[in-house]
Amino acid sequence: MLDATLISEFCGFLGKENVLTDPADRFTYAYDAAVLDPVVPEIVLRPTSGKALGQAVRLCNENRIPLTVRGAGTNLSGGTIPKANGAVILTNALNRILEINEADMYAVVQPGVVTATLAAAVEKKGLFYPPDPGSQSVSTLGGNVSENAGGLRGLKYGVTRDYVMGIQFFDVNGQPVKTGSRTVKCATGYNLTGLLVGSEGTLGIFDEIILKLIPLPAHQKALMAVFDDIHQASETVAAVIAERIIPATLEFLDNFTIRAVEDYSRAGLPVEAAALLLIELDGHRVQVEEDADKVASLCRNLGASTVRVAKDPAERDKVWSARRSALSALAKLKPTLILEDATVPRSRIPDMVRAIQEISAAHGLAIGTFGHAGDGNLHPTILTDRRNTEEWTRVEKAIDAIFDRALALGGTLSGEHGTGIAKSRYLEKETSPGTILYSRRIKAALDPNHILNPGKIIG
Amino acid sequence: MLDATLISEFCGFLGKENVLTDPADRFTYAYDAAVLDPVVPEIVLRPTSGKALGQAVRLCNENRIPLTVRGAGTNLSGGTIPKANGAVILTNALNRILEINEADMYAVVQPGVVTATLAAAVEKKGLFYPPDPGSQSVSTLGGNVSENAGGLRGLKYGVTRDYVMGIQFFDVNGQPVKTGSRTVKCATGYNLTGLLVGSEGTLGIFDEIILKLIPLPAHQKALMAVFDDIHQASETVAAVIAERIIPATLEFLDNFTIRAVEDYSRAGLPVEAAALLLIELDGHRVQVEEDADKVASLCRNLGASTVRVAKDPAERDKVWSARRSALSALAKLKPTLILEDATVPRSRIPDMVRAIQEISAAHGLAIGTFGHAGDGNLHPTILTDRRNTEEWTRVEKAIDAIFDRALALGGTLSGEHGTGIAKSRYLEKETSPGTILYSRRIKAALDPNHILNPGKIIG
Repeated sequence: MLDATLISEFCGFLGKENVLTDPADRFTYAYDAAVLDPVVPEIVLRPTSGKALGQAVRLCNENRIPLTVRGAGTNLSGGTIPKANGAVILTNALNRILEINEADMYAVVQPGVVTATLAAAVEKKGLFYPPDPGSQSVSTLGGNVSENAGGLRGLKYGVTRDYVMGIQFFDVNGQPVKTGSRTVKCATGYNLTGLLVGSEGTLGIFDEIILKLIPLPAHQKALMAVFDDIHQASETVAAVIAERIIPATLEFLDNFTIRAVEDYSRAGLPVEAAALLLIELDGHRVQVEEDADKVASLCRNLGASTVRVAKDPAERDKVWSARRSALSALAKLKPTLILEDATVPRSRIPDMVRAIQEISAAHGLAIGTFGHAGDGNLHPTILTDRRNTEEWTRVEKAIDAIFDRALALGGTLSGEHGTGIAKSRYLEKETSPGTILYSRRIKAALDPNHILNPGKIIG
Repeated sequence: MLDATLISEFCGFLGKENVLTDPADRFTYAYDAAVLDPVVPEIVLRPTSGKALGQAVRLCNENRIPLTVRGAGTNLSGGTIPKANGAVILTNALNRILEINEADMYAVVQPGVVTATLAAAVEKKGLFYPPDPGSQSVSTLGGNVSENAGGLRGLKYGVTRDYVMGIQFFDVNGQPVKTGSRTVKCATGYNLTGLLVGSEGTLGIFDEIILKLIPLPAHQKALMAVFDDIHQASETVAAVIAERIIPATLEFLDNFTIRAVEDYSRAGLPVEAAALLLIELDGHRVQVEEDADKVASLCRNLGASTVRVAKDPAERDKVWSARRSALSALAKLKPTLILEDATVPRSRIPDMVRAIQEISAAHGLAIGTFGHAGDGNLHPTILTDRRNTEEWTRVEKAIDAIFDRALALGGTLSGEHGTGIAKSRYLEKETSPGTILYSRRIKAALDPNHILNPGKIIG
């Protein structure tokens, strides 16, 4: 397929050092953070300019080479697993912040900019880019926009989608397409921005992204509520929101996760607790203090044995960085970790927590549950060993059961991890044949040769 | 085209009283709020259930009858002007609020629910649906979602797009399609919700809409800053935002508009002022009071001769209802009113105000300017008489000039009124051939017979 002429054509505009064909190099990009079989691509391309990116897309399409764009590969749905006869296009050399506009509060970035790098850069100017996926210290903004990544602050601040004002991207022919604007309001033409966010590299390849920024909140306060009964903790979540208090984050950790995190991070978490709620409030100082008092009493009234308030930013950071280590902490316990992402309307969190316990017991599996309870987005995490085929059968059944319960509770298959390969085959459970047909018509019209990340979302 | 058999087929599932073929009835739906030539449709259909709506769409497609769905027809871009051989489908009988979920803070509505009706219903429960287009007392939510309507609160709260969690709609074959979810986070499948918002009835016909609600702000405060120099007023807009204060609304009115509004509403506006800023802050009481003090001093430092604070809700409502009457007030002055919607990044508001003054002088036209300065969305409003063909030529040149200046300032053709017929031919100025081609591919794939509101957005 990839003959020497074509490879030398790629080398011509990318530079020889940015065209990787060595098997060892290619194997590096055969998998991502999802538990799926690796697929070694035929070639890896690393454009160093938007122009070269567009040329690479065009050449792939002309030669019918399926292409998968990859940021940091931290997605958990197999979105960056390539095709065996395909190319992986790396965005790590397209990592410039092109503009931070303080007056109009937006940033323009190349897709390979690391999420935390932008967040830190705008914070220096008193601005805030809220989306904070768990992998923010390595994940890229291009990847976040492709997957419509969420994070801990979704409850108050929304997800990546809510911050994308515009995208410049290449269609499958390498033709530039511009959508959205640097203005807060834009009702011109179709909202292609909306369609491209979360399209997982299947409809177009991002060149530049315009992201909305907001003023940095003046004040923060973090609380930890310790519960001896997991159900009291889950019921407290909805009670907080019912008070019309919207914390920036409202995280839930069960005992299994607390123990794993404490082992890993030594942050001083109460390992005997049945569950913890970690709550951060932000905004005006007076509002934060008032809300913190209300939330603390509410937690106590609903059964919390203690409510600790972080004394200073250092203590607050210690707890949050412990929470952020949950995935790594759990991953140390067993060879294979399946982090699920089923999401329910937040009032159904108690039902979902109960359902996960039942599923864990019914299938004899270790499941740690933590996540963004405030927005209904829990991460039941199954610890297993994929080589154990008998156990793996039970794992698959448990995953099905988790999805079925989430959907029965009015939820969705994925809150923030995307569809990718992992959820593609479940899509019909949540949507309808009409939805899949409609989606396929769009995909076929925009990518008739199935070049753009084939096999993702709608297969 | 429409023979008796087909008409009786429509009557069969819609009921005879909901199929209008009388010329007088049909003429009622020949125009909307945009200044464009009326087009009388061949038939008007009024489904009273979602099922009947789907059947009507299917039958139109099968018989190649172009269909235009109409809420209240308040859009200003010709989005509801039908085809002469087409059908108008009215949504006014699909006007039920199906659910208001307090715990999970969302509402499910049929498309014909009036915007203000939902806003009032959720306010009774301490919740808030922020999008407030000028026509909210008559406009429908289906129309708002079709046009991605904005409003006065866009600066702090965003536009309609930011509140649509999911849509159930019919594709051109009348097949139901479900997108989005009742959960805050949803990353499953393509973000068809994003694509459908603002698609102006050209990609699918809404059956049910899930809208996000937020807690009602606890406190409001309204200020009126009076300026003797229009440029000082426009420069104050960016200065407020530069202080990292985000008012709920930050409205600008020039002297021309102030006079028209005062004539019409007798609200006690200062008719000698060169310009006014109307500012409303909301949130926690302490924050609102602090911000109000800061904004007031800022306005005074930048040249405001007076800053009035509304004493009570009654005074506040009086000023806002005066502001909301601007369009009607200006419409009384001349036979034809062209309300433009060009939008710029907010820091360019002073340049845009200057540009409008120059264009008004250069073409010898009366242009009143008002609008949502805080989000860069001004409404320069040309007063004219369309029967005066010489003046009309100058009007068309002035509109072109306004668009060109907005785009040169990094803006967009439409902040909140949509593309419709009115902006369709200008689209290429803002976007690129690639964008239009990409959009056309989507449209052709989803509506191969050009049945769904043909002629809108991309022609």
